Amino acid sequence: MNIRIYYEDTDAGGIVYHTNYIKYCERARSELFFEKNTTPTDGKNSGFVVRNINANFLGMAYLGDILEVSTQLVKKKSTSIILKQSIFSKKKKIFEMDILLVFVREGKPTRIPLHLADIIIPKKV
Amino acid sequence: MNIRIYYEDTDAGGIVYHTNYIKYCERARSELFFEKNTTPTDGKNSGFVVRNINANFLGMAYLGDILEVSTQLVKKKSTSIILKQSIFSKKKKIFEMDILLVFVREGKPTRIPLHLADIIIPKKV
Amino acid sequence: MNIRIYYEDTDAGGIVYHTNYIKYCERARSELFFEKNTTPTDGKNSGFVVRNINANFLGMAYLGDILEVSTQLVKKKSTSIILKQSIFSKKKKIFEMDILLVFVREGKPTRIPLHLADIIIPKKV
Amino acid sequence: MNIRIYYEDTDAGGIVYHTNYIKYCERARSELFFEKNTTPTDGKNSGFVVRNINANFLGMAYLGDILEVSTQLVKKKSTSIILKQSIFSKKKKIFEMDILLVFVREGKPTRIPLHLADIIIPKKV
Repeated sequence: MNIRIYYEDTDAGGIVYHTNYIKYCERARSELFFEKNTTPTDGKNSGFVVRNINANFLGMAYLGDILEVSTQLVKKKSTSIILKQSIFSKKKKIFEMDILLVFVREGKPTRIPLHLADIIIPKKV
Repeated sequence: MNIRIYYEDTDAGGIVYHTNYIKYCERARSELFFEKNTTPTDGKNSGFVVRNINANFLGMAYLGDILEVSTQLVKKKSTSIILKQSIFSKKKKIFEMDILLVFVREGKPTRIPLHLADIIIPKKV
Repeated sequence: MNIRIYYEDTDAGGIVYHTNYIKYCERARSELFFEKNTTPTDGKNSGFVVRNINANFLGMAYLGDILEVSTQLVKKKSTSIILKQSIFSKKKKIFEMDILLVFVREGKPTRIPLHLADIIIPKKV
Repeated sequence: MNIRIYYEDTDAGGIVYHTNYIKYCERARSELFFEKNTTPTDGKNSGFVVRNINANFLGMAYLGDILEVSTQLVKKKSTSIILKQSIFSKKKKIFEMDILLVFVREGKPTRIPLHLADIIIPKKV
């Protein structure tokens, strides 16, 4: 998935504001579902919640850059999943994070529905 | 209401990103309700929606600045309200907008509930 | 220009947060320059600043929607320009604004450089 | 440091969008400098950059909530620093992260200037 950097993404330091890389990863995860014409939920009061993020900031991005986000499966359990998401600028990796997502219903960890698991376990976005 | 400018508020131009002034005005409107321990709704599927904004950008704000937002009533009708919101930096006005808000329930304009009207018609925030 | 709506674009009301429509219009203006491999500046300390926005909010957008932004010239003067930008969801117009942009150098209104004027006066983005 | 949750902070899931907790921590770090009437830089082209964030999302926050952010020193080296930042809602911890910040000048790790080190090593924000 490609992401263009606009003014809103940058800060007074002249570079992309650090938390935005984590937002781009969320866009890439959601896009997996949107492009299948669905959403990452299973009806009301269910969905994936973020439990842990371990992120390395390896480089910088600037106004007008086009970034590429890739998503890979690290580990899948019945109620949770770990993904590795990387962001590249001009083929150079500038960001990488492992994210632990738990599927919850009414606030409680629940088995990930099969049709959603099939989508969130991608080869590449 | 005072608002501090953080990195997230600025862009690569070194100043506050223009739409953020409009966000600060929304904070000031919401704060009217929050400080009364309530929210700007009347139960499910009701609330104020923005219909028109006419905004003048008169100056600039920078990282670390503390801005002041003021809110005044321009006009009140049964289902809508017009407010004038101004933003000051060091006592100088840098932004001003008139905003038309309509109260809707199930998507339809509805009389503004009295207890909400009492709150949104402030002297000053 | 097409824009996908992600979680970050929505708020607790379940719809797109109102100021984001104005951000999408900024993306569309910037994209005019980025797609020509340039930026909307003429070196240091120059650029377009927003002076006035008059915006009508005509409809709503939701998570996963794909919006289309169009940009048209309303009026061009030597140091300023008025554009009309509209946002469509499923071919229905949900937002429209007139925006007055002034070109400034060192904080002062200046003649818009020809090569930038050629770009910001599009037929359609 | 206290932070009120506004509409802009929430998403269509009805809760605070996950990356915003990391933004609130940045606000708290910047506020350390702002309240001393300075900024976290040492002139041009220098400043703290984020190298790693390890974040645990322990609870949720909602529209109108007032959150409290605390910042503590974990480790200090000559060019870098590790802080633990926690966010509380009604005295309950809902977020915690360790963040590794490196001080850079012209893109290269540099000794943290003494007057900045004195500020970023707080007891509590």
